[in-house]
Amino acid sequence: MSDSSNNQKTTNTQWGGRFSEGVDAFVEKFTASIEFDQRMYRQDIAGSIAHATMLEKVGILTSDELSQIVEGLNEVQQDIENGTLEWSIPLEDVHMNIEARLTDKIGITGKKLHTGRSRNDQVATDIRLYVRDEIDFICQEITRLQEGLIMLAEREATTIMPGFTHLQTAQPVTFGHHMMAWNEMLERDFERFQDCRKRVNRSPLGAAALAGTTYPIDRHMTANLLGFEAPTENSLDSVSDRDFAIEFCSAASLLMTHLSRASEELILWTSAQFNFIDLPDRFCTGSSIMPQKKNPDVPELVRGKTGRVNGHLVSLLTLMKAQPLAYNKDNQEDKEPLFDVIDTVKGCLRAYADMVPAIQVKEDVMREAARRGFSTATDLADYLVRKGMPFRDAHEVVGKSVGYGIEQDKDLSDMTLEELQQFSDTITEDVFDVLTLEGSVNARNHIGGTAPAQVLAAAGRAKQKLQTRK
Amino acid sequence: MSDSSNNQKTTNTQWGGRFSEGVDAFVEKFTASIEFDQRMYRQDIAGSIAHATMLEKVGILTSDELSQIVEGLNEVQQDIENGTLEWSIPLEDVHMNIEARLTDKIGITGKKLHTGRSRNDQVATDIRLYVRDEIDFICQEITRLQEGLIMLAEREATTIMPGFTHLQTAQPVTFGHHMMAWNEMLERDFERFQDCRKRVNRSPLGAAALAGTTYPIDRHMTANLLGFEAPTENSLDSVSDRDFAIEFCSAASLLMTHLSRASEELILWTSAQFNFIDLPDRFCTGSSIMPQKKNPDVPELVRGKTGRVNGHLVSLLTLMKAQPLAYNKDNQEDKEPLFDVIDTVKGCLRAYADMVPAIQVKEDVMREAARRGFSTATDLADYLVRKGMPFRDAHEVVGKSVGYGIEQDKDLSDMTLEELQQFSDTITEDVFDVLTLEGSVNARNHIGGTAPAQVLAAAGRAKQKLQTRK
Amino acid sequence: MSDSSNNQKTTNTQWGGRFSEGVDAFVEKFTASIEFDQRMYRQDIAGSIAHATMLEKVGILTSDELSQIVEGLNEVQQDIENGTLEWSIPLEDVHMNIEARLTDKIGITGKKLHTGRSRNDQVATDIRLYVRDEIDFICQEITRLQEGLIMLAEREATTIMPGFTHLQTAQPVTFGHHMMAWNEMLERDFERFQDCRKRVNRSPLGAAALAGTTYPIDRHMTANLLGFEAPTENSLDSVSDRDFAIEFCSAASLLMTHLSRASEELILWTSAQFNFIDLPDRFCTGSSIMPQKKNPDVPELVRGKTGRVNGHLVSLLTLMKAQPLAYNKDNQEDKEPLFDVIDTVKGCLRAYADMVPAIQVKEDVMREAARRGFSTATDLADYLVRKGMPFRDAHEVVGKSVGYGIEQDKDLSDMTLEELQQFSDTITEDVFDVLTLEGSVNARNHIGGTAPAQVLAAAGRAKQKLQTRK
Amino acid sequence: MSDSSNNQKTTNTQWGGRFSEGVDAFVEKFTASIEFDQRMYRQDIAGSIAHATMLEKVGILTSDELSQIVEGLNEVQQDIENGTLEWSIPLEDVHMNIEARLTDKIGITGKKLHTGRSRNDQVATDIRLYVRDEIDFICQEITRLQEGLIMLAEREATTIMPGFTHLQTAQPVTFGHHMMAWNEMLERDFERFQDCRKRVNRSPLGAAALAGTTYPIDRHMTANLLGFEAPTENSLDSVSDRDFAIEFCSAASLLMTHLSRASEELILWTSAQFNFIDLPDRFCTGSSIMPQKKNPDVPELVRGKTGRVNGHLVSLLTLMKAQPLAYNKDNQEDKEPLFDVIDTVKGCLRAYADMVPAIQVKEDVMREAARRGFSTATDLADYLVRKGMPFRDAHEVVGKSVGYGIEQDKDLSDMTLEELQQFSDTITEDVFDVLTLEGSVNARNHIGGTAPAQVLAAAGRAKQKLQTRK
Repeated sequence: MSDSSNNQKTTNTQWGGRFSEGVDAFVEKFTASIEFDQRMYRQDIAGSIAHATMLEKVGILTSDELSQIVEGLNEVQQDIENGTLEWSIPLEDVHMNIEARLTDKIGITGKKLHTGRSRNDQVATDIRLYVRDEIDFICQEITRLQEGLIMLAEREATTIMPGFTHLQTAQPVTFGHHMMAWNEMLERDFERFQDCRKRVNRSPLGAAALAGTTYPIDRHMTANLLGFEAPTENSLDSVSDRDFAIEFCSAASLLMTHLSRASEELILWTSAQFNFIDLPDRFCTGSSIMPQKKNPDVPELVRGKTGRVNGHLVSLLTLMKAQPLAYNKDNQEDKEPLFDVIDTVKGCLRAYADMVPAIQVKEDVMREAARRGFSTATDLADYLVRKGMPFRDAHEVVGKSVGYGIEQDKDLSDMTLEELQQFSDTITEDVFDVLTLEGSVNARNHIGGTAPAQVLAAAGRAKQKLQTRK
Repeated sequence: MSDSSNNQKTTNTQWGGRFSEGVDAFVEKFTASIEFDQRMYRQDIAGSIAHATMLEKVGILTSDELSQIVEGLNEVQQDIENGTLEWSIPLEDVHMNIEARLTDKIGITGKKLHTGRSRNDQVATDIRLYVRDEIDFICQEITRLQEGLIMLAEREATTIMPGFTHLQTAQPVTFGHHMMAWNEMLERDFERFQDCRKRVNRSPLGAAALAGTTYPIDRHMTANLLGFEAPTENSLDSVSDRDFAIEFCSAASLLMTHLSRASEELILWTSAQFNFIDLPDRFCTGSSIMPQKKNPDVPELVRGKTGRVNGHLVSLLTLMKAQPLAYNKDNQEDKEPLFDVIDTVKGCLRAYADMVPAIQVKEDVMREAARRGFSTATDLADYLVRKGMPFRDAHEVVGKSVGYGIEQDKDLSDMTLEELQQFSDTITEDVFDVLTLEGSVNARNHIGGTAPAQVLAAAGRAKQKLQTRK
Repeated sequence: MSDSSNNQKTTNTQWGGRFSEGVDAFVEKFTASIEFDQRMYRQDIAGSIAHATMLEKVGILTSDELSQIVEGLNEVQQDIENGTLEWSIPLEDVHMNIEARLTDKIGITGKKLHTGRSRNDQVATDIRLYVRDEIDFICQEITRLQEGLIMLAEREATTIMPGFTHLQTAQPVTFGHHMMAWNEMLERDFERFQDCRKRVNRSPLGAAALAGTTYPIDRHMTANLLGFEAPTENSLDSVSDRDFAIEFCSAASLLMTHLSRASEELILWTSAQFNFIDLPDRFCTGSSIMPQKKNPDVPELVRGKTGRVNGHLVSLLTLMKAQPLAYNKDNQEDKEPLFDVIDTVKGCLRAYADMVPAIQVKEDVMREAARRGFSTATDLADYLVRKGMPFRDAHEVVGKSVGYGIEQDKDLSDMTLEELQQFSDTITEDVFDVLTLEGSVNARNHIGGTAPAQVLAAAGRAKQKLQTRK
Repeated sequence: MSDSSNNQKTTNTQWGGRFSEGVDAFVEKFTASIEFDQRMYRQDIAGSIAHATMLEKVGILTSDELSQIVEGLNEVQQDIENGTLEWSIPLEDVHMNIEARLTDKIGITGKKLHTGRSRNDQVATDIRLYVRDEIDFICQEITRLQEGLIMLAEREATTIMPGFTHLQTAQPVTFGHHMMAWNEMLERDFERFQDCRKRVNRSPLGAAALAGTTYPIDRHMTANLLGFEAPTENSLDSVSDRDFAIEFCSAASLLMTHLSRASEELILWTSAQFNFIDLPDRFCTGSSIMPQKKNPDVPELVRGKTGRVNGHLVSLLTLMKAQPLAYNKDNQEDKEPLFDVIDTVKGCLRAYADMVPAIQVKEDVMREAARRGFSTATDLADYLVRKGMPFRDAHEVVGKSVGYGIEQDKDLSDMTLEELQQFSDTITEDVFDVLTLEGSVNARNHIGGTAPAQVLAAAGRAKQKLQTRK
C-alpha cells in the first residue's frame, strides 16, 4: 500500500506527467499487498459504506449515488464470497481491487467514493476493524478454555499431586488448584485484550493522506456507524500509528507464554516418568516405526508456536523503530506478522479449549508422587512452631527427621510416633493429622491457598467473572 | 533467589543433614542476586512491616514483638541509607541481608518475621511494589513531556511546515499539529502504563513457597496495608507469575518506539539539509577535531536506547517460555532487564521533557520547504471537484499543471491565473485562496485535521486530560 | 512432522492396538505441515534416491527394486511439477505424500524405501539440502549487487558529497567511497553465508529416529551422493539440531541490517531536502491524489522487511530454547520462519541488484552540500599542524575562523587569504589546496581513505575477490 | 562516545565559538560512557602504543616523544590497576580519561598522540581487540567443557538410558552417546566463534573520524603491531560497522541455546520423577523452610540466562537498523549488551565446565527406565524384516505384541518365546539378542549410532580435534 497510489500499468494516464516509465514487473509484485490484505475485504467494504453514507449526509454524494455505491459494494462482497472476483496484482491491494470492481459495476460514481479519504486512512480503518473483530473472537475462545479449566478444577478439587518448585517436590497441592493457576493466567490475558481493544477501537477515517481533508466530512458519524468509540485526535498520528498492532501482539505473546507453560507441564505429565495424566488419543499421534509411541503433538506444537508469536512482536517493534511521520511504505509490513499472530493464537486456543476438558487424571500416581519426597516437611515444622518451639529449633528437628527418613527410606508419615519422638518429645499423636496429604492441603485454607475449600471458592468466583462477560 | 534457601557457608546448621558440602565459591557468586536486588530495600522493608502488623493482629506475634520488628526494620533502613550496611554475597539477596541485620539487632524475634511467608512470595511482593512506584514516577514524567509538547503546539499552531509521506513532500501541515501527533502517542503510553498498573497492583503476599501457608494469615489486611487493590487469587500463580514485568516492558517498548520516531525527526530536522529547528547547545556536543560540528547527541542516544528496551522485553519473554510451575530459579533473571528498562525509560523521558520546550523553530526555512514541491496540488484537485469537475478530470488537470511547473521551475502558487487556466477554464481568481499554504492548512478544519483552529482545540482537550491526572 | 508417524484416518491399521480413536479433524490440520513443507519436494526426492542407491549397494534392496524406486520417484517429481499431484493433509507432510504416491505407482517396493531411516533424519536432510541450494543462490545475488556497487564506485570515484557523522556535515567524501562502504558490508555477508554453508553441508541421513539404525547402512556413501562434506557425528544431535537454520537467519539479519542502512540513505537522498540522487521511476510509485509524489517504495519496503527477518530469528531462537533431546514436535515450527527469511532476502537482493546500477547521481547538488558546512575545517587544522603549530593552537585558530565564517556566512574556501591570515600568519597561499573539496578528499590517500585513487584501488581489489568466486 | 568530542565543562575553549552554553549536567551523565567502557582500558592503551609507534616511524613523532608516550601510558595502566585513577564523567569515556591522565603526566606531547586518528576509529579498535581477547578465553572454556563431556562419554559409553522423542520413551541409547550429542553442539559453537574471530580481527585504526586522515599513516603497521590480520578496506564502513558485535552475540545465543537444552535435561534428570543423575551439593541450594529440598540452581539459572543473551542480540540488531553512515551516537549503545553477553557466557561456561565432570549417573534407574516402555519394539520389527517379512506385516506383528504386553504389563523382553510366537512363528530363540537393551544399542553400529563402540570412536575423534586447538 502506498499512499493513494495506483499502480495500473497505464501509468501515464493515472499519474500524469510525473512518471516516464511504468513500474518494473518484479517491483510491482514485490510491492503489492493484495496476496495478504484481501482477507480484510469485509472490513474494507463496511468502511466504504460508512464513508459513503456520511458523504451523502454532508452533501457530497446524492442519495442516488449512495444507493448505487452501497448496492455495488454489496455485490462486490458477494462476488468475493462466491469466488468470482479475481484479485489483481497490478491493482496492488484490497482497496483498489474493490474500487475497480465497483467502478466496473456502477461506472464513474464508484470513483466518487474515494472523495475525502485516502488509502492511508482507509487501510488504518480496515486493520482496526479487523483486529477488533478478532479480539472479540479470541476473547470468546479464552472464555471457553477458562470454562474447561474451572470445570476441571471443580472436578479435581480434592485430587492431590506434588507441588513443585525448581521441579523438585515441594509441598502437596491439589490438581484443581493447579488448574486454577492456569485460569488466573488466562484471566489476565482476557483483561489485556480488553484493554487493547479500547485503543484499537478508535476511528482514523477522515485523516486522509496525512493532514485531514478539505471536504466537510463528519468523522464522528463514520466512527459511530462503524462502532468505534470515537474518532482519533490527530491525522498525522492516525495514518502512522501502529501501536494497536504491537499492543495486540504483546498481549498475544503473553497468552502464548502461558500456553507454553501449560504445554510444558502436559508434556512432562504424559511422560513415562511423571505419568500423571493421559491425553485423549485424538490429540496425539503415534509412530509407524515405534509401535509403542503416543506423542503429545498438540502441546508440543503450541509450545513451539510461542516463538512464532514472540518473533512477530519483535518484527513489528523493529518495523516501527525510528520511522519519521507520517505514512511510510514500511508500514505495509505490518499485516503479515499481525495476521499470522491472529491465526496462531486462534488455532492454539481452539486446540486447548477442545483438549483441556478431556484431560484424564491419574489420581493414584499423583498421590503416590506427592506422598514421597517428604513433601509435608514444612507442615511438621509449622506444627512444632504452633506448639511453641522456636522456628530455628523446629527446622533442626525436621531436618534430622528427614535425614533419618532418607536413611531408612521412610517418608515422615510412614514413621511411627516413637520414631518421630526421637527428634522431639513435643510431637504427639495429633502430628499425623498434619503429616497426611489431606491434612497438609486442607491446612492452607486462606484465599489463594491450595485447600480444596479454597479451590472451590476460587472456582466459584471465577465462574461469576465469566458470567459477566456475556 | 532460590525458594527460602539460605546460602551461608555454615550449610549444615541451616539445611540439616541433606547437604554434605558447602556451596562452591564461584557458584555462590554466580547465583547471588544481592548486587542488583538491593535496590528494592525500601519495598522489602515496607512489605515486612505490613506482614508483621498482620501477624500481630492474627495472634502470631505479640504486640511487643511487633514493636521490636518495626523499630528494628526502620533502623536497618537507616543503616542502608547511611551506607553502614555492607551487602553480603553469602547472604545471597536483599531479603536475607535485611533479615540477618534485623536479627543482629533484635535477636531471635527477627526470625519470627518470616512466619507464614517464603522468599517466593516476598520477592514477588517487592517487585510489584517497586514497579508500581516506578510506574507512578514514569507517568509523571510522561505528563511533564506532554505539557511541553502541548505548550509548543499552541505556540506553533500556525507555523507551517511540509508534511511528509514516504519522506517526500506531501501536503502542508502546521508544526503544532506535528507536536500534537507526538502528544497522542504519549497519551496512549500513559494509558497503557495505567492499565499495566492495575495488574501490577495485586498482592501475592501470603502465597508462601507455592501453596499458601498453614498459619491463619489475613491476606486482605496485608494487601490493604501495602496499597494493593486485592490479594492475588492463586498461590501457584502468585509465585510464578511475571506477566506484570513483561507487560511493563511491552509498554516501555512502545514508549521508546515513539521516542525513537521523534528522535529520528529531530535528527533530520537539525541536519544541514532540513535545517528546520535548532536544539539548544546544552543538549548537544561538539567535536575537538571538527570545529563546525554540533551533534544532536540526546536524540541519537534515545533512538539507540530503543534497542535496549526491546531487547529486554525479548529477554523476559524468552525467560518465561515453557517454565513449569511454580517458582524456578530462572526467575531471578527477571530483575536486571526490568530494572534497566526502568532506568532507561526514566532517563530518556527526563532528557526529552527537559529538551522539548527548548526546541527552536526555524519558521522561514520550514515555510519555504512547504512552499516548494507542489504541496498544494491536492488542494487544487479538491477545488476543481468542488466546482463540479469529475475527480478523474480534476486529477488530470492538476497533473498537467504540475508537469508544466516542473518544466518551468514554478510552484502552483507562483503561476499566473492565465498559466493555470491553460489547463482548465474552470479555474478562477479564487483559486489562489486554496493554493496558499494558509489556505491549504485552514481548509483541513475537522477534528484531527491540521487547521490551526483544530490544533488549538486539540491542545485544549489534551490539557484537560492532563488536568484530570492530578 | 512427528517422528515416523502416519496420520491416515485408518489409524488402527497403521498404529496397531495403541490408539482407540482417530485424530481429531482440526488437530489433523493443526499439526500437518504439507502446506509449507511441499516446497522441499526436490530435495526430498534427491535424498530418497541417494538413500535407495545406498540400500542397494549394502544389499537391502535388489537392483531391480532400486530401478523401480528411482523411476517411480522421477515420475512423482514430474507429477508435482505438472501439477497433477494433489497434496493431502491426512498424509501430513511432503515425505508421506511422496511415499504414498510412489507406492501407488510401484506397489509394496515403495515401502522398502523407508528401511533404515525415519522421518526425523529425512526432514533434517531435506532442509539442509534446501538451505544449501538457497545459500548458493543468495550468494550469487549478493555478488550481482556487489558488481553494481563496484561499477558505481568506479564511475563516481571522484564525485564529491558531504560525509556525515551524527547526520551532520563532517568531511567531504566521494560517492564512490560511500558505495564501497556498502560493498564492504556485503562482502562480510558473503563470507558469513559461506561459513554457515560449511555447517549446513553435513549429512544427518542415517541418524534414523534418534539412535541410528540396525541396518548396515553406509552414511558416507549417501553423504557423498548428496554432495555433503561428511556425515554428522551423533544421531541424537542430528535429529534435534537446528543450529544451521538459526545461523542462516543470523546471517540474513545482518544482511538485512545492511540493506536497511542503505535504504535509509536512499530515502534521505531522494527527499526534497537532500536531493542527492534520483531513483528510476520503475522502482517508485506515485499517488493518484497527490500528483507531485514519487515515492521510494523499494527502499522503504526493504527497510521495513528488516523487522520481518529479525523477528524470524527470534522465533527460531525461542523455539529451540530449553528443548530436551531428541526430536520434538516443536521443531516443525522451524520451516515457515526459515522459508520466509529465504524468500524475503531473495526478493530484497533482487530489487537492490536491479536498482543500484540505475541510481542517478546529482553531482552538483552533492558538491554544493559538501562545500557548505565548513567540511574542510579538519583539513585546515591538519595544515597548521603540518606547518609546526601545536595541535591545541591549530584547533583554536580553526575555531575562530569558523566562528567568523558563520558570522559572515562564508565557507572557509570562500575567504580571502587576508581573512584567513587574521587568525594566523602561518597560513599562506597553499592553504587553498587543502581547503578545496578535491584537496580534502585527495589528501586522505591511504588504504581505506576516501581519495579517488584509493577508491579505485579498493574497487580493483574488490573485483578480484568477486572473480575468485566463479 | 561522540566523534572526537570533548565534554569538559570549559566548553568554549575546547569547541571554539560554535557553542554558547555548556552541556546540561544531566545530559552530561546521560551521554557519558565511562561507567561501562573503562573495562577496555588495556586495549585502549595497547592501541595507543601501536599508534604512537607508527607515528614515530612515519616521522610525525620524534623517538623521544614516542618514549614519553609509551612510558606515560604504561604508568597510566598501573594507576588504573592500582586503583589510583578516578574515572571522570565530564571526561566522558575511557579514551579521554586516559589521554587526560597521560597529558597530566607528560604534558603537551600527550596531545600529539591523537594525531591522525579520531575517537571513532579508536573505539572501534578497542572493542575489536577486547572482543578478540574474550573470544580466545571463551574458546578455552568451551574446550574445557568439551573435555569434561568426552571424559564422561567414555566413562559411560555402555551405560544405557531411554532415548526420548517427544519426551516419550523411544529407543535405548547410551548415556555416553547423549553426552557426545552435547559435545557436537559445542563443537559447532567453537567453530562459529572462530569464524567470527576472523571478522573481528581486522584493524579499523586509521579510518579516523570517517574519511581517513591527511597524515601519512601506515595502517598495515598498526594492524600488524596489534595482531590484526589486516586493515579494514573502507573508512566509512570502519567507523560505522558493528557487525562483529552482532555476529558475536549470534554465536553466543546459539551457545546459550545449547546450554539451555542441557540445563533442561539436567533439571528433568534430577527431578524425583526421572531421578537419572545426581548433581554434587556444591552446585545446588537447599531451603530453610523445606528441609528436603535440593534445587538444581545452576542449570536453572543458565537456562534463564538464555533470554538475557537473546535479548541483547535483539538489542544490537535493533540498534543498527536503518542507521545512515557513518558514526552516530546511537552506537555508544553497543557496549553494554555486548559486555553483558561476554560476562554471561563466561559465567555459564565456567559453571558448566566445573559441574559436568561431577555429574553422578544412576545407572540402575536409567536402565530400568529404558527397559520399560517397549523401547525395543523397533528392534523386533527390524528383526522380522531381516528374516524376510514385509515391513507392513512386521509392524502389525509388533503392534499386536505391544498390545498384549500392555494388557499383561510385560515388556517385550519379559515375554517367553511361546508368548512371542503367538504373533509370528518367524520368531525364534535368537530374538532375545535383539530385545535386550545391550542388543539394541550394540546393533546401531555405524558412524553416529549409539553403539558403545561408536561412542568410543566418536570420543576418540573428538579428542583429536581438541588436540589440534593447542
